[in-house]
Amino acid sequence: MSDADIAVVGLAVMGRNLAFNMAEKGFRVALYNRSQERTDEAMALAGPLADRLVPCRTPEELVAAVRKPRAILLMVQAGTAVDETIARLQPLLEKGDALIDAGNANFHDTVRREGALDKAGLAFLGVGVSGGEEGARHGPSIMVGGKPEVYGRVDKIFTAIAAKFEGTPCCALLGTDGAGHFVKTIHNGIEYADMQMIGEVYGLMRRGLGLTPTEIGDVFERWSKGPLSSYLVDITATVLKTTDPKTGKPLVDVIVDSAGQKGTGRWSAIEALALGAPASSITAAVEARGVSAERALRKTLSERFPGAAQKLTLAGNREAAIELLEKALLAGKILAYTEGFAIMSAASREYGWKLPLAEVARIWRAGCIIRSTLLDRIASAYDETQDLETLVLAPGLTPLFEGAAGALTEVVAEAFRHGHAVPALSAATSRWLALRQPRSTADLTQGQRDFFGAHGFGRIDAEGQHHGPWSQAQG
Amino acid sequence: MSDADIAVVGLAVMGRNLAFNMAEKGFRVALYNRSQERTDEAMALAGPLADRLVPCRTPEELVAAVRKPRAILLMVQAGTAVDETIARLQPLLEKGDALIDAGNANFHDTVRREGALDKAGLAFLGVGVSGGEEGARHGPSIMVGGKPEVYGRVDKIFTAIAAKFEGTPCCALLGTDGAGHFVKTIHNGIEYADMQMIGEVYGLMRRGLGLTPTEIGDVFERWSKGPLSSYLVDITATVLKTTDPKTGKPLVDVIVDSAGQKGTGRWSAIEALALGAPASSITAAVEARGVSAERALRKTLSERFPGAAQKLTLAGNREAAIELLEKALLAGKILAYTEGFAIMSAASREYGWKLPLAEVARIWRAGCIIRSTLLDRIASAYDETQDLETLVLAPGLTPLFEGAAGALTEVVAEAFRHGHAVPALSAATSRWLALRQPRSTADLTQGQRDFFGAHGFGRIDAEGQHHGPWSQAQG
Repeated sequence: MSDADIAVVGLAVMGRNLAFNMAEKGFRVALYNRSQERTDEAMALAGPLADRLVPCRTPEELVAAVRKPRAILLMVQAGTAVDETIARLQPLLEKGDALIDAGNANFHDTVRREGALDKAGLAFLGVGVSGGEEGARHGPSIMVGGKPEVYGRVDKIFTAIAAKFEGTPCCALLGTDGAGHFVKTIHNGIEYADMQMIGEVYGLMRRGLGLTPTEIGDVFERWSKGPLSSYLVDITATVLKTTDPKTGKPLVDVIVDSAGQKGTGRWSAIEALALGAPASSITAAVEARGVSAERALRKTLSERFPGAAQKLTLAGNREAAIELLEKALLAGKILAYTEGFAIMSAASREYGWKLPLAEVARIWRAGCIIRSTLLDRIASAYDETQDLETLVLAPGLTPLFEGAAGALTEVVAEAFRHGHAVPALSAATSRWLALRQPRSTADLTQGQRDFFGAHGFGRIDAEGQHHGPWSQAQG
Repeated sequence: MSDADIAVVGLAVMGRNLAFNMAEKGFRVALYNRSQERTDEAMALAGPLADRLVPCRTPEELVAAVRKPRAILLMVQAGTAVDETIARLQPLLEKGDALIDAGNANFHDTVRREGALDKAGLAFLGVGVSGGEEGARHGPSIMVGGKPEVYGRVDKIFTAIAAKFEGTPCCALLGTDGAGHFVKTIHNGIEYADMQMIGEVYGLMRRGLGLTPTEIGDVFERWSKGPLSSYLVDITATVLKTTDPKTGKPLVDVIVDSAGQKGTGRWSAIEALALGAPASSITAAVEARGVSAERALRKTLSERFPGAAQKLTLAGNREAAIELLEKALLAGKILAYTEGFAIMSAASREYGWKLPLAEVARIWRAGCIIRSTLLDRIASAYDETQDLETLVLAPGLTPLFEGAAGALTEVVAEAFRHGHAVPALSAATSRWLALRQPRSTADLTQGQRDFFGAHGFGRIDAEGQHHGPWSQAQG
């Protein structure tokens, strides 16, 4: 019976949960996983949803189970596994069938795959899905890249399973080929910066103000009702207030302080560099995970250069200090989003995607890991002004930022003075201070470059390239 | 007459100066440039060296002019021009002839080109040359990648033209294929960080202490006699003390404050990210050039958010402040070199180059843009301990660094507090503070990642991957 609306290949938690989500919304879903156990496991966990699931033992069975023109969603590990899966399925498909890569692909791969499949008469979508396991099951944010006519064949399924923000599905076609995966990459880059800044503020409260994890959890819980309201602040409160069942200690204290990373954060930083669109705080956050993983080196250095971070004298009293930290985190977060949207602007120009930035902000308002009230303001900002020069200049954001920027500078200065590492907050601050200073020190840099490399420099009082008076003297 | 020792293709200033340098050392050099005028110009400028130069009008003439097996050095613009030049020459060459790319190639291209030419029976070297126009003419630092037997055919020429540090040529074979160009890339990354930090300290003296460019030039001149002694500090003094002939103002004040960049600094940052070897201050320096180039945005933001950088209260008096800044710059510089060498260590492992880091430091002691007395200490450090865990732990460097690190932290804190952007100095500081803290805040990050993505975390009291107590509760 070729009556499934869509197929899902790859039934680890994310793929399984997406399939369950689709089934729950009334779609018939064919399932396949290379190792049969995962398919069996999915069926066993499906409960009443099993009626709408069609387990398949082979790619051939899977292809036969789906209505034509077929839509086959791949949720396999990003990288070579995607190419292998495509190679396995491609000979079984017919002209017009569509493959949909919903993993965390590098967008360059997506562009390549879309091009190759297009030549072979097959359709392809590159789809970023955010929201973790929970999101996949009950409503993720879905960022689609590809041709409108291909998206038109699955948009009903995608909008049905997507998270809803005040009734609006958090799902959109954002541009051709790699646009969806690119936006997902930058989403994750912002996520890295957001998480790192939260971590830094946690560190300042913990080791600078001497609060316990539970007390800090309470602070984050309070903050989650203000302008910082977001999923990440919510779960920070939950994590910090969790007790380890084994030891009775705060859970966070028994976790090894070495953060892992998948490719997307790093890709954000690399693509930003390649585009010449500085991503200071995102890059700093990626690097901070790298530094956290250098545990042996950290141990050596902390023993060789003792002198741990000291108490902060922030604002005099605890409550005022916490208020200052809240503002600093808000300002840092606004700057991280400003960076992220600036990178997307640059990429949109470079790759001709015409990324609808208001739409990007809108589909991030629910379902995804970085969902926050701030994104609602950002969506409005881009709705009002499509070609906004920079996010901090949006009327809905400027007052918020202006009231918080001073706190950021003060907190970072105080943190440094007392030996606390705040890489993402300080990167955002440096970037901000550099952007608002009417004159940079690059005049000296250009003078140096002309001196040793005859690179030439612009003059403030004349057009064209000029050289210093040393250029005649040199050989 | 096929009697030239080597050919040089590409006669812009760098290529011409290298050819003159070779001729001066007694070698016979065949010359070719795609547009004949450059060849004519080189001959016109050659003076008595013209006797050892063989101008050629076509690639065929050039190839005929060189002794077999031929060595042909390319000094053309990095990128497609190199591939085009190789494609033009390749059919004219014979088995065993060697092409030498001495431009600023991306090392990935060098690896590809070496492989392709090797298959065609041709030899290839990828050679990084540092020292600007002056260095090329009178002694650059030369970083070679390729097969030892190929290098053995030109090492006499290269060591003859290279800069000498106390008699030792600053030229070495550093590894196979892309090793030379990779090391040159990191050299340039360090150069970016060094220049940016100098610029930041200049900015603090200029706008924080109110010194004039000439006064600051005097300060750098004094510093050039101490531990900061280096080519870049020397030329900073010269640039700052230069008067613009047209206006009579300090030259630096008529230069547009927007720094250009070629690829190498950016590549350093990208490769460091790809290797997972954080390059905080190098990346910050690359980004700072990007920010300097965003002049329109800076103008808008500086008008919308007025409040320029304020006077610094550093250390109470001017002399003490200048001393503090000297130490801060020294500490920042040591950290930038530490990053650079860590990236090379990581690349050496990743690409199997076995980079001789002591040798790298040795050949950077003269000729190149980042030459400094510090590099002599670094060379000794790696001579003593080949597998040094990190540069700051080298016996010859630790005391110097320890005496300066506090000043760096203090200066950065003070700069932030008063609204000065110090992106590279602050990135180095954050990295340093993160590396010396016994516990990072990545425990929270791992808790968050497990909460939303079931990524799992390590426990301090057990092996393996674990999950928080929330994992049962979730779907």
